[in-house]
Order: sequence, then structure tokens, then C-alpha cells
Amino acid sequence: MNYESAAQALSSFDKRVEQMRAYSHAMGVMALDASTAAPRLSAEGRGRTYAVLSQVRYELMADPENGALLAYLESHEAELSQIQKRAVQLFRRQYEQLRRIPMAEYVDYEVLLNDSQAKWEEAKNKADFSIFQPYLEKIVGYNRKFAVYYDAEKAPYDALLNEYERGLTMETLDKFFGALKDALVPLIAKVKAAPAIDSSFLSRFYPASQQEKLSYLLMDALDIDKDRCTLAETEHPFTTEFNNHDVRITTHYYENALASSMYSVIHEGGHAIYELDCDDRYNYTLLSGGVSMGIHESQSRFYENILGRSRPFLSYLFPKVKELFPEQLQDVDEELFYRAVNKAEPSLVRTEADELTYCMHIIIRYELEKRLLDGSLAVRDLPEAWNRLYRDYLGIDVPNDKAGCLQDSHWSNGLIGYFPSYALGSAYGAQMLACMERDLGDIWPRVSQGDLSHVRSWLKEHIHKYASLYEPDELFRRACGEFDPKYYIDYLEEKYSRLYNLK
Amino acid sequence: MNYESAAQALSSFDKRVEQMRAYSHAMGVMALDASTAAPRLSAEGRGRTYAVLSQVRYELMADPENGALLAYLESHEAELSQIQKRAVQLFRRQYEQLRRIPMAEYVDYEVLLNDSQAKWEEAKNKADFSIFQPYLEKIVGYNRKFAVYYDAEKAPYDALLNEYERGLTMETLDKFFGALKDALVPLIAKVKAAPAIDSSFLSRFYPASQQEKLSYLLMDALDIDKDRCTLAETEHPFTTEFNNHDVRITTHYYENALASSMYSVIHEGGHAIYELDCDDRYNYTLLSGGVSMGIHESQSRFYENILGRSRPFLSYLFPKVKELFPEQLQDVDEELFYRAVNKAEPSLVRTEADELTYCMHIIIRYELEKRLLDGSLAVRDLPEAWNRLYRDYLGIDVPNDKAGCLQDSHWSNGLIGYFPSYALGSAYGAQMLACMERDLGDIWPRVSQGDLSHVRSWLKEHIHKYASLYEPDELFRRACGEFDPKYYIDYLEEKYSRLYNLK
Repeated sequence: MNYESAAQALSSFDKRVEQMRAYSHAMGVMALDASTAAPRLSAEGRGRTYAVLSQVRYELMADPENGALLAYLESHEAELSQIQKRAVQLFRRQYEQLRRIPMAEYVDYEVLLNDSQAKWEEAKNKADFSIFQPYLEKIVGYNRKFAVYYDAEKAPYDALLNEYERGLTMETLDKFFGALKDALVPLIAKVKAAPAIDSSFLSRFYPASQQEKLSYLLMDALDIDKDRCTLAETEHPFTTEFNNHDVRITTHYYENALASSMYSVIHEGGHAIYELDCDDRYNYTLLSGGVSMGIHESQSRFYENILGRSRPFLSYLFPKVKELFPEQLQDVDEELFYRAVNKAEPSLVRTEADELTYCMHIIIRYELEKRLLDGSLAVRDLPEAWNRLYRDYLGIDVPNDKAGCLQDSHWSNGLIGYFPSYALGSAYGAQMLACMERDLGDIWPRVSQGDLSHVRSWLKEHIHKYASLYEPDELFRRACGEFDPKYYIDYLEEKYSRLYNLK
Repeated sequence: MNYESAAQALSSFDKRVEQMRAYSHAMGVMALDASTAAPRLSAEGRGRTYAVLSQVRYELMADPENGALLAYLESHEAELSQIQKRAVQLFRRQYEQLRRIPMAEYVDYEVLLNDSQAKWEEAKNKADFSIFQPYLEKIVGYNRKFAVYYDAEKAPYDALLNEYERGLTMETLDKFFGALKDALVPLIAKVKAAPAIDSSFLSRFYPASQQEKLSYLLMDALDIDKDRCTLAETEHPFTTEFNNHDVRITTHYYENALASSMYSVIHEGGHAIYELDCDDRYNYTLLSGGVSMGIHESQSRFYENILGRSRPFLSYLFPKVKELFPEQLQDVDEELFYRAVNKAEPSLVRTEADELTYCMHIIIRYELEKRLLDGSLAVRDLPEAWNRLYRDYLGIDVPNDKAGCLQDSHWSNGLIGYFPSYALGSAYGAQMLACMERDLGDIWPRVSQGDLSHVRSWLKEHIHKYASLYEPDELFRRACGEFDPKYYIDYLEEKYSRLYNLK
């Protein structure tokens, strides 16, 4: 069709965006329901519905008319606002990427992910990788294909990394992870040699119903608006959002691990705050929501660790936790609690790892993903390769695949290339802390009173409110200047040297 | 388009049905999410998505090509199976009805219902009818319009009744309710004159977390497969289903009313069993699921009252309930429990009414709906009219609209003409019991052992397995012969005469 004016083209553009959004919204709610509430045997019906809706969504997104519309708007760029220009750019990117994927593959992949989610849960519960293996093989196969569609000139894994953090490459990550390993390996060794912290009280019996009360207490402590964000339970904690008035976080209660759900809620709470504090103007547009996984994880890991595991925050929080669990924490004081939740020790499960060893979990996943994508590792050999890396890098034996390569939900969700953003986000967060302290001075006295508003305001002003207006690297640069992993390394060295009285 | 064969036309038919089903499924999950998990302020985004999807669904359903396709299949009826013939009939009915509603009205109505749901909840929580009034005015307005579209020759309320129970009219209901009133009014008077039953122990403090355990115990007692049916909490209990592998029931816990959630779970469990026991062959077709609200309520009210409030079932169940609430039920025995949950007493809330006075609640709603639809009652005068009827028919004063005309979620969901099916269903159920006892002999000894399988098998064989294959009146006639309210009246007279030692 021919467009007569930018205004007319923009009206067509908005209508198309609104349609695609509606399908993503509906399928997103169905996926959320599948993880939180749907019965186990509901997968077949949901798969049939996904097949119909994802085909329509594909047709909407890959419609050749979009190409003409985008070309018209691009040639009238001078008449567009900054937001409109960015929306056109994001639509163009999505369109170019999607139209290269044949529709049948796209739809099959959506249905596959629905089935895989159920199979992964079953495999994890039974600690039996063989149940999930054929599904993961297909997922990896599709991702290798899609990577070529995305950018045939890039190595497949680079093409996937680019999906989660624009511009991120194996070259960058090899350097970043190299610097981290150089600093962390000796630091971990020193910590190992120091007297261990006794955190055994964290494994006492903490009833799920009381932990649920703690979750709501934490949401209040983080000032999360419950009229715009609710909490549910899932096998694996996550955050999902539809707009800044509809955000969901989930957690998982383990009755013998107090810190597990507690820090999941704070982590997902950090994601939620990013989404809730996006400016209203971006709602229902392509600029809606956080811009990248790296920036998103910077917020979640900032809340979880830099704030949530800090001495000042815990001096505010601990008395409230003790009120909920007076018997279990009878012989525990603030200092012991602080030390226990920061105890560094090589462990099996990423989501429960301490800050110091956390990145080793990411490096392991990064190396495995690289090999799965370049074909040097077959999916069937994944458990063995996983277990070997845990022995080599963390010195521990993996007892079964539930605590091993089945622990995370990412791969069953098709998220290959996502994990590095956790490490990158952690490092972003440490640099943000330095910038925040440069701007605000000492942030901690107010934190120890339970007042986090200055921290949140800084993050909102520099990160959150922009939603997806800027590319992640530009957003970060505007907030903090050039990215430098030394802030993160310094942060970890200082924190753990003090905690373990290291020289 | 021209069809070349019945096979080709059927393939097009199936594809169209599958598409419509997918949209209904997605919007159904979104509605379920809205009631169970979504944050309060999510309504706007959901409304936008409904607007897009319901428009597409409308276009699919009202597509003029459907008319040609249906005509072709109707003229080749000899080549169709019984199931296919019925599917064509149901599609025709839906098509004829929908294509008369202008699309803009259809979409606006879907969006209105989404908004109304949130407003009704707010109004109920604040006991303030004025919040909900403008929404109910619009809902009634649309229903009056739609009734004319459905069947301009019928009185509007008859046209709506026909939606929930095909063929049901005010004439039939006036007779049925007349017979009920004739029998119940004197019976209620006798019960009122008899010594009252002390049920005060049911209002002790029963923590929601323990009541939740009771819910799962009840689902086990009813043998509800939790891999195909899950439980959630909502303001108002309901059942929703997508296919016989994906059924959801909800309840609401009141910590000072043990019987409330207990009988909600059994009631919704009855709905769920009907859906779960539909034959697999009907899944994903237009014949999927229970055939009418009247038949559905016959199942839910059968489980809730005829079984769930029976002495034999309670002799099995009570010891288990007592285990969950040993302190609260310390001084209570089986007989007292049985008498308390059957205590007949005019009360405010329909869902918690005893079997004897229940139908008076329905008759009140029926009379109000009739007047709302014929225009003799304005929505703004509804609270007053409601309160007057409660005084006239049940002799009680309604303290506020929360306990009055805001108590039910039906009207905010657009369900006008639904209520009579509860009374009809109750009467159907009593007649089914008589037929079952004729076929099986004394069903109660096994029930008192907690074995309900013979009852469920009878219902499955005569009702459930057929899904929507037969019209409700035919289904009932095949199972029980001609409908006769005397079974229900006899059942109530016998039960309450014994309970209250009446002559």
C-alpha cells in the first residue's frame, strides 16, 4: 500500500504494533499460567492454541507490508519523534530477523517450547536427563538454525548473544570472563583457606507458609506496589511483565533453606522494580519494558546482592525476619545472619550461590553453550561435561542431574545465550554502585533505616525510566561511562577480604 | 468458495473451529488469570488485548463464508457422523446469533466485562453499589439489545434464558417456581417453628492455610485428578475448563466460616467431575464440555448437597475434618456436624444458603432479572428492590450491598438468565438420585465408606460422557425420563422433616 503522510503511516504502524502486542500478551499469560497454575496434563491443549496464535503472530510480524511501511517511515525520519524513530528501529530489527525464519519452523518451535517446559519439569523432578534430552536436542538444533537466520556472518553463538545483549560477542566475554577468573580463582582459594562461616541455621525447618509471609514483607521492604505486581510460586523463580501496571514475580519455597526464596524474591523484585519504574509513555509500544537481559540482571543482582546482602540492609531487615521465625533464629544475631547469607563456598546450584563463586557457575554455562552451538559438544554428553566443569572449576561433585544440568529453566525456555547477562549484569551493578555513591555520597545510613528510596530514585533516573529507549551499551554509558569490570572485581575483593579477614 | 466434497468442507470446518477455540482458550486463560493472580491495576492492558483478540474472534465466527460452509454441510448431512451433524448444528446456532451483533458492540461488550469485573470487586469490597451501578447499567443495556438479536420474537428475558438452558422460558419457570414456593413456604415455616440447630461452632476460627489442606482432602475424597484439575483462590468460587485435561476450580476462604469453602470446593468439584469425565473424543470440538448450565448445576449441586451434605458421606468425612481442626471441633461429633451443615435458616448469602431456603434466593434473582429486562426495574433501584424481596420472601434485613445485590459475580460477568439454572439443576439432581437408586439400589453404604465410584460411574454413563452431544432436555430425558419437580420437593420434604422431627 502507498502511504500519504507520516501521520498515516504511523497510524498503521501503531495498529500493527498493538496487534502483535495483544498476541504476545495472551501467549505470555498462557505461559505464566502454565508455570504457576495449570494442571500437568494441560500441555496438549495449550500447544494447540499456541500453534494457532503463534502462526497469526508470525504472519503479523513477517507481513511483507511491514517492509514497505518501515521503508516509508525510515525515509521520513525527520518527521518522527525520538520515540517513534526508536520504535521504527526496533520493529525493523524484529521484522528482518523474523521474516528469515520460515513460518512452519517458528510455529513448531513455539509448540516445542511448550512441550519442553513440561518435560524439563518432569526430568528435573525425577533427576533424569534422558526425559529432557530429545527436547533439548531440538531446541539446540533450532537455535543453531535461527542463529544463521539472525546473522549468517556471525558465529552462531555470537548471533544468539546479540539477542540478549546487543553487540555482545564471545570475544568480549572471553576477555571479561578471563579477567574475572584471574581475580576470582586466587580469591576463592584464600577464602577456602580461611575459617569457614557456620551457616547451618539457614537449613533449619522454615515452613513454606511462614516463608510466604516473608515474601510479602520483602515486597513491602522494597516498596513494590502490589496493585501492579503480584507473587506466585513456580519450580524456578522468574519475573514476567506485560506493562508497567502488570508485573509478576515468582519464587520457590524450600523448607530447609531460608535464604533460597528470600533472595529469589529480592532478585525478582529488582527485575520488577525496573519494569514498574519504566515511564508510562512507553507502555504498549515497542519501547515498553527493560532494554536487555544484561541491564535487567544488573538491577536484579543489584537488589539481591549489593543491597540485599549488605550489612546495612540486613541490620534493618533481620529483626523482622527473626519475628517471623523466632524459634529457628533464637540463637542467631544480625552479624551471624549477615555472615551466613554471604558465606562463600563452592556449591551446586547457581541461584543459591554466593556472590563470590556465582560467576564460576556462569562461566561453566557459557563454555557449555559455546560448545553446544559450535557442535563440539553433543546434548547427550551434556551431563558429563557439566559435571566435569563443576569438578574442575568449583571442586565439587554433582550427585545427580537435578542438582546439575537440569537445575535451570533457561534452556527449556529456549534461552541459549542468556546466562552471560547475569555476570555482565553483576558487573554493571557494581559500577552503578560506584556512580551512585559518587552522586549521592554515603547511601548506607538510610539503607540501614530501611529507606531505599534514594537508591531507587537514582536507578529510576539513570536506568529504569528510559525503558527501551536506548541501546543497552548507550544506556549504561550515559549512566556510568565506559564499562569496566574492575569495579566488580574491587567490590568482591573488598567485601570478601573484610568478611573473611583476608590480607 | 465452492466445496468439492463433504470431506473438504469438513476439513475447512475443523480448521475454523480450531481457530475460534484457540482465541476462546487464550481469552479464557486471561480471564482466569485476572480473577486469580493478576494485579489490580492490570485491567487496562488486558482490556486492550481483549479488544484486539475479541475482534478477531468475532470476525472468525461471523465470517459470511461460514454461512456458505454450513449450508454445504447441511445439504450433505447424510455424509456426516452424529458428532459432525451436532457440530454443524452448534456452529450454525452460534453463527446465526453472532452475526446479528454488530462487531463494535461485541468488542465493546468484551472490554466492558473486563472493566466490570474489577469494578464489581471494588464495589463489593467497599460495599458500595454506586461504583458498580454504571457498569451494570451498560451490561443490562447490552443484554437487552443482544436478546433482540438472539430472537426478536421472544421476550428479551426468554431469549437470554434460552442461552443458558435451551428452550427454557419464563412460562416454564413461573410454573416450576410456583410449585416450589407452594411446597417450600409452608415447609420453611414449620422448620422455623421447630427448635433451632446450634451451628455456632462453624463460625470458630479456621485458618485459611488449614482450610486449604481441607480443599485438597476434599478433591482427593471426590477423586479429582490433580494432574487435570487445579485449585486457586478467587473472590467468588467458580469452575472453568478448556478441555477434559485442563479444568480449574476456585474457592474463597473465610476464616470464620468452615462450611463456606468446604461446600464451595465440593460444588465446584461437581462441575469439574462433569468436565473431566466428558469423553476424550469431544475435546477441541464444538461438542466439548458440559451441555448447559442447568445440567452443569445439577452435577455441582448433586455433589454439594445430595452427596456432600448427606449423613453417610459426612460419617466418612467428618473424622478427617476433625483431624485438621482438632481444637475447633473438640466438642463436635458427626451427628452435630451433619445437623449444623444442614441447618435451615433464612440467610443473606446464596452460596452459603442451606438446601431448603436456597431456591428462595434464586427466585428473588429471577424476579429481579425479569424486571431489569422488561424495563420495570431500573438498575439504580436494584439494591432497594433486592432488599425488599429478601425481607418479603426470607424475612431478613440486608445490612449492606456486599451481603446484598453485590454478593454474586454473575452480573459483572454478563451472566443474566443464568441463576434459574441453579434451581433447575437442583431439581434435576434430585430426580437423578431417584433414577440412580432405581438402577443401583441403595447407594449409601458405599458412600459411608468414602467410596463414590458407583455414583460417579452412573453419572458418567448417563450424563458426563456425552459432553454436548445432546440437547439438555434430551440428555435429561434419556437419563431420567420426563422432568418432574416433585422428586426435588419430596427430597427436601423428607430430608427436612427428618432433620427437624416434623410431622
